[in-house]
Amino acid sequence: MTWRARLAELDIALPPVAPPAGSYLPAVQTGSLVYTAGQIPLVDGTVAATGKVGAGVSPEEGQRLARVCALNALAAVDALVGIDAVVRVVKVVGFVASAEGFTGQPAVLNGASDLLAEIFGERGRHARSAVGVAELPLGVPVEVELVVEVA
Amino acid sequence: MTWRARLAELDIALPPVAPPAGSYLPAVQTGSLVYTAGQIPLVDGTVAATGKVGAGVSPEEGQRLARVCALNALAAVDALVGIDAVVRVVKVVGFVASAEGFTGQPAVLNGASDLLAEIFGERGRHARSAVGVAELPLGVPVEVELVVEVA
Amino acid sequence: MTWRARLAELDIALPPVAPPAGSYLPAVQTGSLVYTAGQIPLVDGTVAATGKVGAGVSPEEGQRLARVCALNALAAVDALVGIDAVVRVVKVVGFVASAEGFTGQPAVLNGASDLLAEIFGERGRHARSAVGVAELPLGVPVEVELVVEVA
Repeated sequence: MTWRARLAELDIALPPVAPPAGSYLPAVQTGSLVYTAGQIPLVDGTVAATGKVGAGVSPEEGQRLARVCALNALAAVDALVGIDAVVRVVKVVGFVASAEGFTGQPAVLNGASDLLAEIFGERGRHARSAVGVAELPLGVPVEVELVVEVA
Repeated sequence: MTWRARLAELDIALPPVAPPAGSYLPAVQTGSLVYTAGQIPLVDGTVAATGKVGAGVSPEEGQRLARVCALNALAAVDALVGIDAVVRVVKVVGFVASAEGFTGQPAVLNGASDLLAEIFGERGRHARSAVGVAELPLGVPVEVELVVEVA
Repeated sequence: MTWRARLAELDIALPPVAPPAGSYLPAVQTGSLVYTAGQIPLVDGTVAATGKVGAGVSPEEGQRLARVCALNALAAVDALVGIDAVVRVVKVVGFVASAEGFTGQPAVLNGASDLLAEIFGERGRHARSAVGVAELPLGVPVEVELVVEVA
């Protein structure tokens, strides 16, 4: 089954590529790797939520937003090389805007990781770094970037 | 035109390579990729500014400092492989020491991105992540790292 | 001398691979590169310390913890491809949970960098980014990730 068929099977629609918030590209290929830009939870061109996880934003909501970020990252990969070119997901880096004392970044980022596993199975399993940062662009609670191996 | 000629045309001089602030190298090549160290706004060996963007440092000043970081990163690439070996810029990660509530990291990082576009044109367009962090080495407001594809 | 013999000579034992704190893998190979997950200072499955450097955690303790993180990262590389496959260390990114005003991230990260130099000599010298973040998973003071070139 192609990844596109798998997406259809899961009833997951890749969103339009989120326009970059500055003078850069949503994704770039070099050799067999695609690096995405850090993706924020934009839905239909507007931020799905703002605030910090552990304060105004619950960990569960953060997890849902991390999933949106990952979907946006896959949309960027798809627009660049076609989703069916994905060989495997290599790396995820996730930044969580964190209230003082919030240390549950891994559970938040599972929203992204679980989506990748759901779609790509073993090929979706990746190395990951999760950190809690002070502030994110436009006040969003989560930002996710991917490195993906492509054919 | 070579990139070196392009730099001359733009009247941009690459600075001396900034000495690492610890036991590491300014840049390393693996295959066709060069990874730079995180570059801070050192000018002539001293930090050009300290403080947080959104508090003591304005976004415009942050943008200017991001440009200095990118210049230092290019100096590191040049010293390692020669600037004319650059095939394209792949990825920029920018860390902005951010005061509480400052969410304009993308505009700050445009200082780096715009410089790369100015020099390398289409080959300078890259994927980018911008995050707001609590503190940066030596108290600088901005740190920028590059991944560059080289011949 | 193999790297494994070098480890024995230095009396350094690689720990068991730390279990991921979420739905991801400790390390992934793509082509000649291995990306590790962000490693935290887990020792025997429990966090070696919590808190922020510059407040409850001293820079010297942070440095020691960064070394533990790097050892955990090497354990992940070893489990995936065998430590003797390492050609060189390419990149280190280090995140330091930093108290307000703490800007000594480079010295903290030297705990990781110096270990890599001790084991791999010139092949251990890498590009590095060090940043001070708000919070880290499980409240640890340091997180370190590696990109390593392998044969």
